[in-house]
Amino acid sequence: MKKQTIQDIGEFGLHRRIQEILGPPSQEVLVGIGDDAAVLAPQTSPLVITKDAMVEGIHFQREWTSASDLAYKAIASNISDLAAKGATPAYGLIAIGLPKDALVSWIEEFYQTMADLREVWGLEIIGGDTVRSPQIWASITAIGRQITATPVRIDSAREGDLILTTGTLGDAAAGLELVQKGSQESSNPDESFLIQRFLRPTPRLAEAMLLLKQVQPSAMTDISDGLARDLPKVCRASGVSAQVDVRRLPASDALKRFPDSCRYAWQGGEDYELLFTLPPEQAKFLLNNWPSTNCPLTPIGEITPASQSMRLQNWEGPPLEGFDHFG
Amino acid sequence: MKKQTIQDIGEFGLHRRIQEILGPPSQEVLVGIGDDAAVLAPQTSPLVITKDAMVEGIHFQREWTSASDLAYKAIASNISDLAAKGATPAYGLIAIGLPKDALVSWIEEFYQTMADLREVWGLEIIGGDTVRSPQIWASITAIGRQITATPVRIDSAREGDLILTTGTLGDAAAGLELVQKGSQESSNPDESFLIQRFLRPTPRLAEAMLLLKQVQPSAMTDISDGLARDLPKVCRASGVSAQVDVRRLPASDALKRFPDSCRYAWQGGEDYELLFTLPPEQAKFLLNNWPSTNCPLTPIGEITPASQSMRLQNWEGPPLEGFDHFG
Repeated sequence: MKKQTIQDIGEFGLHRRIQEILGPPSQEVLVGIGDDAAVLAPQTSPLVITKDAMVEGIHFQREWTSASDLAYKAIASNISDLAAKGATPAYGLIAIGLPKDALVSWIEEFYQTMADLREVWGLEIIGGDTVRSPQIWASITAIGRQITATPVRIDSAREGDLILTTGTLGDAAAGLELVQKGSQESSNPDESFLIQRFLRPTPRLAEAMLLLKQVQPSAMTDISDGLARDLPKVCRASGVSAQVDVRRLPASDALKRFPDSCRYAWQGGEDYELLFTLPPEQAKFLLNNWPSTNCPLTPIGEITPASQSMRLQNWEGPPLEGFDHFG
Repeated sequence: MKKQTIQDIGEFGLHRRIQEILGPPSQEVLVGIGDDAAVLAPQTSPLVITKDAMVEGIHFQREWTSASDLAYKAIASNISDLAAKGATPAYGLIAIGLPKDALVSWIEEFYQTMADLREVWGLEIIGGDTVRSPQIWASITAIGRQITATPVRIDSAREGDLILTTGTLGDAAAGLELVQKGSQESSNPDESFLIQRFLRPTPRLAEAMLLLKQVQPSAMTDISDGLARDLPKVCRASGVSAQVDVRRLPASDALKRFPDSCRYAWQGGEDYELLFTLPPEQAKFLLNNWPSTNCPLTPIGEITPASQSMRLQNWEGPPLEGFDHFG
């Protein structure tokens, strides 16, 4: 039997399916999916709003990204952005570009994953738009409620602050290389770990909430483009510089057995770990109180005056650079 | 001299230019462009949130859409959505997909138009994302403040209500045909009027605010996909049907002189006129109090029971259909 495409069920049919999958809106959503716009009840917390996009052929390939993988990653990257701004996830809107011949089953899987993830991170999809496009792309707007008294910013790192990260770095970039080589079904446990870290990264929402109960970072962001790009972004916004010790970059055991692991840890994107800065006493306090059962925190370097150039200590290979989306 | 592309200035350079063009955030925006997410102060009004997208090759062609035209239309269509939900525009976020070789001058023109339009409709751009993409596309999230006590919905049209529209219908579709034929520089005044209505539609924000001071429509939407699709959407959502008299569809003088004007008025999209329903006494009250100097309101038909099929009265041509985005 020929599989149904969007053309077979039409735009109305498509919208009805999406509405069925996502279910009725919660109480604070005065108008939800099915109308031209969503309406939210008045909000007593500051709202944190983030928007990003993933494009087929640039950020993912259909061969190694299922509808569910794409939905997962689109949601996870936005949850990560909210976490880095000290916000609990609340609402999401999705614009998706779909080819005419997209399968209904693909779209159902995409939205079903979004519906399932609401249970995990609390992001309720309240609206969006479906449009025709030569490639698949998805743009998500995520809205969260700020849990801190003042916003967690990217531009307030201060000279002398320590630089810390959660988890391990570089796994996702190594995982990407493996899926590009077609190792997606690998039975090698290191390879499957790295691939999983690429396809299904864990946004550090719980860790962000836990650390914000104890300290407020002078600056925080998530590592989506790689430390080599995200750290300079913090520095530039804050008017400071930084030095990082390459030997301190936290790497997973799987990555350590992978060739060139330091380069991945420094340059690799899409790990969605938190990157933040704290005055040394506060960093010490946080590290002393951090449950050892949790995702680890690692000090990797410190913030230096703007007059100094950015330094990567103890690196002995060829010059390392960051990743520019348009470079 | 070779023109600068995004590749020449890189992602950081691009972001800095966008930030300069859009200027500093307003007071209620606690964190604006340049951070990972925007932060809004607590909101006492219900927030109306809409999201849509425009894709090169589907919704526009680069040959007949300048960066400024694209920015204008992307903003205008979202202002129209907010207006139809009884909301005054407040904040916007833009995700844009750009080819590597996109010109910096193109992007500057795009964001400069967004900045200029803030003066017109009050939408402040507070964030977004720029990503690489084979074609240009833009997805806008627009946030407005609801001015009515209860939301203006699409799903509450009732049997016996009159159906009204603002302005004239079909102009934009005729204008699209003209630009596709290459008549963009036409000196024929009818043609330039129709093309202008397509490239630079006026969202009916002032009209929505004025009519909502006097009545609350049982249902309201904007005509973006054409009456033939947007009216059934209202009916389906409301569990009713409708009959429309084709002789009553408001058409501009320019369109009347265009072949097949009735078909354009019924099927043509992108006019961004308001479509709304009201009980007859309220419609009469509104029409009697509507300033004659304003964009006209026209009753075009009435809401009928769901048991009746949708009827287009006084149409004598071949069967007319709506437009399905995936059909």
